[in-house]
Amino acid sequence: MNREAGGPAPVAVDTMGGDHAPGVVVAGAVAAVREHGVRLVLVGQAPRIRRELDRHGVVGEIPIVHADEALDMGEGALASWRKPRSSVAIACHLIKQGQASALVSAGSTAGIVATSRLRLKGQQGVLRPAIAVELPTLPRPTVLLDAGATADVKPETLLQFAALGTAYARIRLGLARPRVGLLTIGAEPGKGDKVTRRAHELLASGHHEIEFAGNVEGHDLLTGAVDVIVTDGFTGNVALKTMEGTVRMAFAELRSAMTASRTARVGALLQRRRLTELRDRLDSDTYGGGVLLGLNGTVVIAHGSARARAITSACVLAHALAAGRIVDRIREQVALTRTSRFGRRPHPEPEPEPEPLPEEPPEPDPS
Amino acid sequence: MNREAGGPAPVAVDTMGGDHAPGVVVAGAVAAVREHGVRLVLVGQAPRIRRELDRHGVVGEIPIVHADEALDMGEGALASWRKPRSSVAIACHLIKQGQASALVSAGSTAGIVATSRLRLKGQQGVLRPAIAVELPTLPRPTVLLDAGATADVKPETLLQFAALGTAYARIRLGLARPRVGLLTIGAEPGKGDKVTRRAHELLASGHHEIEFAGNVEGHDLLTGAVDVIVTDGFTGNVALKTMEGTVRMAFAELRSAMTASRTARVGALLQRRRLTELRDRLDSDTYGGGVLLGLNGTVVIAHGSARARAITSACVLAHALAAGRIVDRIREQVALTRTSRFGRRPHPEPEPEPEPLPEEPPEPDPS
Repeated sequence: MNREAGGPAPVAVDTMGGDHAPGVVVAGAVAAVREHGVRLVLVGQAPRIRRELDRHGVVGEIPIVHADEALDMGEGALASWRKPRSSVAIACHLIKQGQASALVSAGSTAGIVATSRLRLKGQQGVLRPAIAVELPTLPRPTVLLDAGATADVKPETLLQFAALGTAYARIRLGLARPRVGLLTIGAEPGKGDKVTRRAHELLASGHHEIEFAGNVEGHDLLTGAVDVIVTDGFTGNVALKTMEGTVRMAFAELRSAMTASRTARVGALLQRRRLTELRDRLDSDTYGGGVLLGLNGTVVIAHGSARARAITSACVLAHALAAGRIVDRIREQVALTRTSRFGRRPHPEPEPEPEPLPEEPPEPDPS
Repeated sequence: MNREAGGPAPVAVDTMGGDHAPGVVVAGAVAAVREHGVRLVLVGQAPRIRRELDRHGVVGEIPIVHADEALDMGEGALASWRKPRSSVAIACHLIKQGQASALVSAGSTAGIVATSRLRLKGQQGVLRPAIAVELPTLPRPTVLLDAGATADVKPETLLQFAALGTAYARIRLGLARPRVGLLTIGAEPGKGDKVTRRAHELLASGHHEIEFAGNVEGHDLLTGAVDVIVTDGFTGNVALKTMEGTVRMAFAELRSAMTASRTARVGALLQRRRLTELRDRLDSDTYGGGVLLGLNGTVVIAHGSARARAITSACVLAHALAAGRIVDRIREQVALTRTSRFGRRPHPEPEPEPEPLPEEPPEPDPS
């Protein structure tokens, strides 16, 4: 684990998380190493990982750290307490030790969020974590946060989410001053619920180095009107899943429209390639995963049903964020929001102490 | 206005609301009378309405009530105070007098909601009004509420929305026990924000004659998993607009995919009809409007950009709800929620008294 060799420490991949673990996860990880040169460390049951690596003929090329346990897909927040040696917990430990720069997992979102909050802890000054996702707009993605980490927010939390999203968009979209929109139910400042109206005031105060572009509505999610869209984790999750469900339904209807008659079938053949490209762009499975921001380490959450390609994207994303030093950028950006004359100093809730890990920190197994 | 002739009093149509008023509104109203036999009364500037009726050769066949003023499309809540003689205010007055059974308007949603809350007042026992919309699921629509009337809710408000939606679905979908889902961010009871988690408890208590089917998520909006989906007006509005925006984007992309190459264009021709049908079904402009529930009168809000067909649908919808005595059904259904051991008695906020209307109530002008 040579951090001085240039670039961040390797990305820890939880090989035990997801519907198709470990086979598909390892396949995606191998592609990330081969095709994108991402440095990885694979966490999970070492014999099974080794067997998968053997299939790809790369045993010994990617380091393995053994973990006895894995979070189940149905497992929620309690898993973080019940399973102190889960692959996600071990990966978090590697990050704390500086032996990994980020974590990629396709496990249960609730389990990953709970475990990484417990193990990595919230960044100093950050009220609540948020999950950022990249919506498939053109010419570049739009960052939506929070996609589901924090359901109940205060106005100050939304102001901080704007800071988190700004830091993220700088690194991923290469924009110096990404434009931030506040998701609400009307274009005018007075529209929305109480929390959003107050958040609008905070964002509009202009004392925080955030390029606030005003309110955006649900139909702006896919128009690329702004670079970052800020909302609470409840609304953001509903909006994201509504978008995914609508795309899925539209394509199912389209398929049925196309195969309903002989002439339509002929037409369908002619267009199949273009439509497949289109569906793939809109399919959540292909555009990487969500990124949990605001902790002392970067956590990329891939869909549980993720295919190898989505795991590869998630590894590339995790590497890019670690290389861009996202945690440092967030700390700087959030500190600026505190100089606001409106902003209150954050009071993070005390985090419970996790069960200590085994005395001996797990050593990378060069297999 | 012969209420004894069987069926409800006529539906009052605000001919001054909407981007294409009064021409398109009157055209849609005429079609509702001719094709669906709906009894109407047209409210607005009598000379202009008469001119439009003349175009359709039906002067004298549909009664007119004159209104001097109209709400502007950009006008919000204050319009209800500034314009006591707006066409919407006059239409509400007709409802209060029993001269109309419901109101249809394509004006500004904020203006219509504010004016009709002020003039019609909330139904006894109803905490807050909600806008119900019918999502284009198959084989029958799914009712979503609230689509934007009440952004900040209490758990008890969501329980009442379930009662409002149940009453609506009984009339519109003809279901004895429509299944109600609570929109949130996870299938398990403990998922969601604080308000939604508590609302889940209230709904699951089973003391209210509501067929509660549990939590639903954003991707369930278009699957027809339940008959009624309950949420607050903030989340509902964002979800609805996200759905509309996604459909619009998917079809724009599709059009571009279809015209990108010569072979694709040939294919597109073959399928144009089926795709047009599909887009029309998903287009908010064709599936009527939203219905403001919980006031002493039924208010159907058509899209501001509504075409004649959408106005016709809105008139038919308003007539069906009035004929089904939606206000009475809501009163009965809401009363049942109060017997819940969890439910608290509602304390509706005191409604301000509106400026009195002219001494002489406007008389229908038989033109």
